[in-house]
Amino acid sequence: METIITIGREFGSGGRVIGKMLAERLQIPFYDKDLIALASERSGLSSQLLEVVDEQPVSLFLQTCSTMAFTAGGRISLPTEISLNDKLFFAQAEVIKNLAAEGPCVIVGRCADYVLRDHSKVVNVFIHADLTYRIERAVNVYGIDRRKARNTVMKTDKKRANYYNYYTNRDWSSAQTYDLCIDSTVLGPEGTAALLQHLAEGVDARPSG
Amino acid sequence: METIITIGREFGSGGRVIGKMLAERLQIPFYDKDLIALASERSGLSSQLLEVVDEQPVSLFLQTCSTMAFTAGGRISLPTEISLNDKLFFAQAEVIKNLAAEGPCVIVGRCADYVLRDHSKVVNVFIHADLTYRIERAVNVYGIDRRKARNTVMKTDKKRANYYNYYTNRDWSSAQTYDLCIDSTVLGPEGTAALLQHLAEGVDARPSG
Repeated sequence: METIITIGREFGSGGRVIGKMLAERLQIPFYDKDLIALASERSGLSSQLLEVVDEQPVSLFLQTCSTMAFTAGGRISLPTEISLNDKLFFAQAEVIKNLAAEGPCVIVGRCADYVLRDHSKVVNVFIHADLTYRIERAVNVYGIDRRKARNTVMKTDKKRANYYNYYTNRDWSSAQTYDLCIDSTVLGPEGTAALLQHLAEGVDARPSG
Repeated sequence: METIITIGREFGSGGRVIGKMLAERLQIPFYDKDLIALASERSGLSSQLLEVVDEQPVSLFLQTCSTMAFTAGGRISLPTEISLNDKLFFAQAEVIKNLAAEGPCVIVGRCADYVLRDHSKVVNVFIHADLTYRIERAVNVYGIDRRKARNTVMKTDKKRANYYNYYTNRDWSSAQTYDLCIDSTVLGPEGTAALLQHLAEGVDARPSG
């Protein structure tokens, strides 16, 4: 196996668990939050601080400032918050590239599909599920208050979409963004992991180049 | 096998061919353009006329008239064009429901996923591919003039999206609209059909309910 599998996921869809199952099936490493720790070490930023900004969208105002700075190409100094978000993104991107260079693995979130867009063997997956299922998982798996669960699920996805769209200039929930998108409730977590194994092995068997 | 597989597809992605391969693998019927003939017989409209309006979007003006008529709930008489489009849609929808009632099958296009939304065993697939690949197929498989191929591919998809979004109130190219979306170039036509077989058999093995 040489293939890297990246997984984007809706909150509560079970994408992380499925990614872990897939990594176990393929006997390759699995990377998720650990990336933050690695990125933290590299960037010299405190891991606590990084956890606060991880996968958080840049506010519209800051986003505008950032775009202005990029497009103007001038020497506008960006606000500290932008700098922190961007610093984490680029630190994580470097970690992701280094991990990918080490060999096959499963990477969840953090725009890994975009970061590895020039990698020769990578397959990009998006996992989603209907809102009712995700609310149930938010309550039962993450222990989120039932009254707040719907709001938390929807807000988290909005943040993920904003973060992804901002850094990649792609559309987080568009079918065309990924090699494969799947509703995790159709085959269940194990069944989905098995189908993704089928996909990854198929990609791996392809001639390189 | 009890499961119905519906396939939406970008023009030139090979979705139709893959659907046919899948039907052969599962030894179940495959329906595509034939639906038009069946629908034609039922509706009493000429098949030539139906072919002209099949999967063609309603113009923005007519769409607005139609929405007005629906929302007003009054006795506004719709323009003939609307009536023809809608007549075909509802005739095809009835044919699709009858075919689904007969047993498992593969149905390509014509909002079959939406028409069969209340069916107990159905799995909805969307097949896409990058533009370069689709342009090549448009030229080599459909014999479209190379100079016009890019435009034809993009226009056809725009028409399909408008048609789908108008009749279903869903988003044609959103990952969440389908159970599974796949780029047909990742595993190739046969490989994609094999993966869809894996999916369909998994869905079929699920307890009903």
